[in-house]
Amino acid sequence: MISLAEVVLRGDRLALARLLTQVENDTAEGRAALDALFPHTGKAHLVGITGAPGTGKSSLVNQLALCFRREGRSVAIVAVDPSSPFTGGAVLGDRVRMKDLSGDHGVFIRSMASRGSIGGLAQATANVVQVFDAAGYEIIMIETVGAGQSEVDIAKLAHTTLVVEAPGLGDDIQAIKAGILEIADIIVVNKADRPGIENTEKALKSMLDLAHPAPRVFGHHGMSHALPQNPLHAVGEQDAGWIPPLQRTVATDGKGIDELAQHIARHGEYLRLSGDWALRERARLESELEAALRSALMNQFRARVSEEQFSQVLDQVLARRLSPSEAVKVWMNGRLK
Amino acid sequence: MISLAEVVLRGDRLALARLLTQVENDTAEGRAALDALFPHTGKAHLVGITGAPGTGKSSLVNQLALCFRREGRSVAIVAVDPSSPFTGGAVLGDRVRMKDLSGDHGVFIRSMASRGSIGGLAQATANVVQVFDAAGYEIIMIETVGAGQSEVDIAKLAHTTLVVEAPGLGDDIQAIKAGILEIADIIVVNKADRPGIENTEKALKSMLDLAHPAPRVFGHHGMSHALPQNPLHAVGEQDAGWIPPLQRTVATDGKGIDELAQHIARHGEYLRLSGDWALRERARLESELEAALRSALMNQFRARVSEEQFSQVLDQVLARRLSPSEAVKVWMNGRLK
Repeated sequence: MISLAEVVLRGDRLALARLLTQVENDTAEGRAALDALFPHTGKAHLVGITGAPGTGKSSLVNQLALCFRREGRSVAIVAVDPSSPFTGGAVLGDRVRMKDLSGDHGVFIRSMASRGSIGGLAQATANVVQVFDAAGYEIIMIETVGAGQSEVDIAKLAHTTLVVEAPGLGDDIQAIKAGILEIADIIVVNKADRPGIENTEKALKSMLDLAHPAPRVFGHHGMSHALPQNPLHAVGEQDAGWIPPLQRTVATDGKGIDELAQHIARHGEYLRLSGDWALRERARLESELEAALRSALMNQFRARVSEEQFSQVLDQVLARRLSPSEAVKVWMNGRLK
Repeated sequence: MISLAEVVLRGDRLALARLLTQVENDTAEGRAALDALFPHTGKAHLVGITGAPGTGKSSLVNQLALCFRREGRSVAIVAVDPSSPFTGGAVLGDRVRMKDLSGDHGVFIRSMASRGSIGGLAQATANVVQVFDAAGYEIIMIETVGAGQSEVDIAKLAHTTLVVEAPGLGDDIQAIKAGILEIADIIVVNKADRPGIENTEKALKSMLDLAHPAPRVFGHHGMSHALPQNPLHAVGEQDAGWIPPLQRTVATDGKGIDELAQHIARHGEYLRLSGDWALRERARLESELEAALRSALMNQFRARVSEEQFSQVLDQVLARRLSPSEAVKVWMNGRLK
């Protein structure tokens, strides 16, 4: 019998949709397909898009997808939404995207359903991305809602991370921006037609100066963070590395989108030329390997210690007779079997 | 020799600060102290404060702390910030708080330094909270920056979760709010003197109706989500449970803060009377137990498989000769030792 993975490799969209569900639900069939597909992965450019709520990320992803399609490249979109049993994901965002992209067979959109834990969601997202990669999608955009620690995990997954900002989101957002900017390969200031754009950009630039203080690319000084026109130029500089460019966009009418797509392509070239692509791949697969290991170790433990035994120990912890780490020591030393 | 834990139990602030550092850095001394302190925990009311950037959470936490202090209760504040090597945490927020609260020995403020992973941060935060609990702080406020999955983990840690909103944060925030509202025990609409407050409140109320559709408390109908005056009333109702109240505040001038503090106290009473306090304690300690277990299992594995062996397998994965799950199977079956 022909496997689901084989049908997906032949480009069957229906099989792809079915497989994604299997993978998301972590079924035996899904896991087997992941193993079968793994040798076919490693070709896609993974692009993470992240930023605070209200910055217009969904519209931006929509416009970027249209732009990549015009260049003839296939695009997968993975929308990672906060878990919500009753909304079932970002209904709003999906509606925006579906309008322009539906009916195009070079585009596949997947909203991640809710997972119990952050770890579970990150793992499921990584697996869905792997399926798209094997299925031959050239650009995979991973959109995350939120502004906090989860961005760091997404950055690990992506080759290129876009951090989206917008004018007028309040002042106490500053400290957060500083944290997020560190993971940015490209900074997008969306809603650039809104008042306050100059202040937002100025604040971002001075924070960028803090984040990337030492190297200066020839011809640029002070506050400037424009991308060198030729990525080879940046690579040629002594340890100059990549300086995140700042791109204004108005996603609602497509302004700045072509330039943004070029920045993404240039960053991809930069990664390949500098050797950073291989480094990011290694870091990404290492964290996947560790996640798989953690979950296998827990399964092995669960096979050894029954629910009832676990519950009895939890009762001892609740009564403050054992601390969590003392309880774990009991299990580790095999006194409970 | 007297242990650090014993000195902390006697109320020594300097020892407390030192111990928190040990615990954050996960040192052997810190772990030993956590075990020694664990029997003294379980008394504090853990209050999580979360919401999107720009809602003014830090000012709100500051005002709440002042309010609890006026009532004579001791307060610890744990600020969980996005990891940032160069900001070292929310500089801005700390400055706001320190002004009003510094010099008061009934208050202790701790900013969490950066952790490598979300799991690491959640664990370190849980441990810091445990130390404050044992040290006798009656109310422990845990403030998280961000708006996404990390809130769910904080909710697991807290007895009472406040979700902070503010007018004018954009429309595409709606889908996120729906997700966050599910974890809210109390909804705070801060910056209530700003334009758009009515619209924000209306949107929140209709989302609350979606989140809590079935039960209706006597005397309330349709859109109303006011808290019943007496928590016993709510408990007495057939399965009425807790309906999250919506409280307007202006943290900058203290408006609505007393009422908010009362909602927090009432929620604490409600949890104890309904038995939910014990359920939340159990869920919290269960997830701590699992986290401790996961980390012990990984340590055990690392003692068995050398870095070099791990790296060799990772190379195979990078070359796409082994999938991550196939690599794990090799280890699990003990073929590699």
